[in-house]
Amino acid sequence: MENKTQNYTPEILKIIRSNTSPGIMRNKLEDYHENDLAEVFPELTVKERVKLCRILDLDMLSDIFEHTDEKEAAEYLNEIDVKKAALILSAMETDAVVDVLQMVPKDKKNLFIELMDDDARKDIAVIASFDEEEIGSKMTTNCIMIRENLTVKQAMSSLIDQAAKNDNISTIFMVTDKQTFYGAMDLKDLIIARQDQPLEDLIVTSYPYVYGNELIDDCIEKLKDYSEDSIPILDNENKLLGVITSQSMVDLVDDEMGEDYAKFAGLTAEEDLKEPLRESIKKRLPWLLVLLGLGMVVSSVVGLFETVVSQLTLIMCFQSLILDMAGNVGTQSLAVTIRVLMDESLTGKQKFELVLKEMKIAFSNGFILGVLSFVLIGLYIALFKGKSFLFAYAVSGCIGASLLLAMVISGAVGTCIPLFFKKIHVDPAVASGPLITTVNDLVAVVSYYGLSWILLINLMHLAG
Amino acid sequence: MENKTQNYTPEILKIIRSNTSPGIMRNKLEDYHENDLAEVFPELTVKERVKLCRILDLDMLSDIFEHTDEKEAAEYLNEIDVKKAALILSAMETDAVVDVLQMVPKDKKNLFIELMDDDARKDIAVIASFDEEEIGSKMTTNCIMIRENLTVKQAMSSLIDQAAKNDNISTIFMVTDKQTFYGAMDLKDLIIARQDQPLEDLIVTSYPYVYGNELIDDCIEKLKDYSEDSIPILDNENKLLGVITSQSMVDLVDDEMGEDYAKFAGLTAEEDLKEPLRESIKKRLPWLLVLLGLGMVVSSVVGLFETVVSQLTLIMCFQSLILDMAGNVGTQSLAVTIRVLMDESLTGKQKFELVLKEMKIAFSNGFILGVLSFVLIGLYIALFKGKSFLFAYAVSGCIGASLLLAMVISGAVGTCIPLFFKKIHVDPAVASGPLITTVNDLVAVVSYYGLSWILLINLMHLAG
Repeated sequence: MENKTQNYTPEILKIIRSNTSPGIMRNKLEDYHENDLAEVFPELTVKERVKLCRILDLDMLSDIFEHTDEKEAAEYLNEIDVKKAALILSAMETDAVVDVLQMVPKDKKNLFIELMDDDARKDIAVIASFDEEEIGSKMTTNCIMIRENLTVKQAMSSLIDQAAKNDNISTIFMVTDKQTFYGAMDLKDLIIARQDQPLEDLIVTSYPYVYGNELIDDCIEKLKDYSEDSIPILDNENKLLGVITSQSMVDLVDDEMGEDYAKFAGLTAEEDLKEPLRESIKKRLPWLLVLLGLGMVVSSVVGLFETVVSQLTLIMCFQSLILDMAGNVGTQSLAVTIRVLMDESLTGKQKFELVLKEMKIAFSNGFILGVLSFVLIGLYIALFKGKSFLFAYAVSGCIGASLLLAMVISGAVGTCIPLFFKKIHVDPAVASGPLITTVNDLVAVVSYYGLSWILLINLMHLAG
Repeated sequence: MENKTQNYTPEILKIIRSNTSPGIMRNKLEDYHENDLAEVFPELTVKERVKLCRILDLDMLSDIFEHTDEKEAAEYLNEIDVKKAALILSAMETDAVVDVLQMVPKDKKNLFIELMDDDARKDIAVIASFDEEEIGSKMTTNCIMIRENLTVKQAMSSLIDQAAKNDNISTIFMVTDKQTFYGAMDLKDLIIARQDQPLEDLIVTSYPYVYGNELIDDCIEKLKDYSEDSIPILDNENKLLGVITSQSMVDLVDDEMGEDYAKFAGLTAEEDLKEPLRESIKKRLPWLLVLLGLGMVVSSVVGLFETVVSQLTLIMCFQSLILDMAGNVGTQSLAVTIRVLMDESLTGKQKFELVLKEMKIAFSNGFILGVLSFVLIGLYIALFKGKSFLFAYAVSGCIGASLLLAMVISGAVGTCIPLFFKKIHVDPAVASGPLITTVNDLVAVVSYYGLSWILLINLMHLAG
């Protein structure tokens, strides 16, 4: 059989477009995963979508809408009866509901919230109270919470009561009578526990937790390290609000890294294929303007060396080489430093060691590349530019030396600048890029033309 | 109370270094999360670690070793009795065992495998049979599999039997008598089911799955979309081998994005803080050598314009500006294209639209920046370089025009090159960077000096 991604869309479409009775159609469709059903939705007509929302049960519909892009979900909900839409929203994971509601026009949104059930409304209010950057905004209230002072049997029946309404059941969270977080228990331990075993035996009281108002950036590494299927989120009174599931963690890590990646490439945010032109231009222009301004600064510094170049135009041919190499080394150091800063918090000593290490790496690589350039470029000038070997190797010596110098400084700058931004609490991924390019360009220009001026023109009196 | 990351290390150390009896110590330590205990391990002496391995139960120890870096885990296992070590390994998640065993010396490794229990040995063989790039290498065999033809009651007791040994229980996978994958069931549905309900009602038969030999790169997007706590992995005969959990997905997404990020920054792989100097140099040098070679090509092309520059040295001041801006635009287009290619597979039409869109964005931004440069640089030359306004604006006109031209071409190149590499099945994130820098440099140099030569020297007969 062919070993390829299965695509259920044609099958599902066939079922929906057949003339079978609603009951049979529902039975058939329930055999598919909600994500596969969600992928069919955009292919349907409005009429077919409305029909489907009537046929499928709430549980299935809410799962389908969770797997739908929030913008599209808002659109589809607009097509159906408001009461039904409110029911679907009430059954969805709260964090997904909050995302969808953001895409719904204000008045419709208020209508939906009014029609939703009390629990859902309360949960939405809790999640909406957190800022987008805070971990609380990504949690779900869809988890099992039971009192810590029950017996194994009571705990099991409390679980069965809650399981119908809640999806994340593999870890059970224990609370005191004041809803304060007490500990956690694996469902599997409860399942295999003897009836007379004290529940206390099963509870891990030092289970990890985070506060809802912690910044995602600050706690994501910790959450990754625990690699649990769900981690509890507390409010500032240590009351259990909800959990962050590992499924949400996948999205969070993906978003977080995607953002860093975009920033690194000089975009203000991630883009996708469907985005309108204006949006894309707006995301890219700010960086380009900053870079243009900084580029002009570099140009005016190059301008200071105009007389050097006019006496020896040959040297300007290699300017791009030195600037590019310094830029490349700086980018490498920057990327490593940003990743290190993302993963761990460094002590002063570790920071110093990091800078030292980056400089050592840059020196080693710079030495190898400098020697290579000295030999090859010297040969090139002598053979193709028809200059004497003394002249050729004087120029290429200058190139090799400034390459080494520029690379070492770039390595240091590429490490220090993100460390500095981190220190002053500015996101190093955003601010470092353009500054490093500029500083490296300046360093490279000054070291190259400066060295050429001293060595070639003042000392050796070359001209060409 | 202070709203900060909790650090349990001091507490745990205090317990381990106290003089309480093993039973009480175990009781106290069992209240902590395995990840927090794992973080304490490097702080302990060898003697303390050995003691801890004697005190804690297997279940706890195996979890702790799963949360330990594989290199350190191999080291610690080496400190304790081989039989005990083999027991711990037998109880660990299979994918983690495979990682740890890779760090153990050959002869010790064989000894461990020999001493492990049969099931674990078989599971390890299955996982080790997959290539590192294949999704099968990341699965765990630690899941609940039950026959599809049971009653609800039988299913429940089969679950209880397996729950003691398996951690991932929230989705239960159904197999036929030949171990062929049949479908999946939510544990919560089983828990709330009536005893006389047919099990068939609870089973989703079109549950998503992947084959073990699918490449991670190819199936990761699909796995993300389903956002399930576990997705089954089948062999080529459709037999159920194990599952990929959402906890593993977090690591996979993290690794995958980290690799892309590193490649984008011109590193051959991700680095971390502890890596020895030689390793880091080796990871970075290959790119730098390629870039040096390509940089020399650019330099020799710049060399062709030496006479243009010698007649009008002023223009070389702005070379870096145009090269940098072309590079920045190319990087933006490259980053967007790589991300788009990672997330979706494009049709020919979509590819064409993407290139067109990138060129439109580059044109819009290029136009804005070109006009700005024309105005500002003209002013700068007139005021600070003491040239006439005609001369100044002729030069800055050249700069503005080549900026626009270079940016549009860079946008197109930055999009086409990764599309091309994807087409010929070369990873676009690796190959595109250096090629794009070079092509953009060449485009920028030729358009800038070419335009200057035609416009300023041949047509206007300027010199300076």
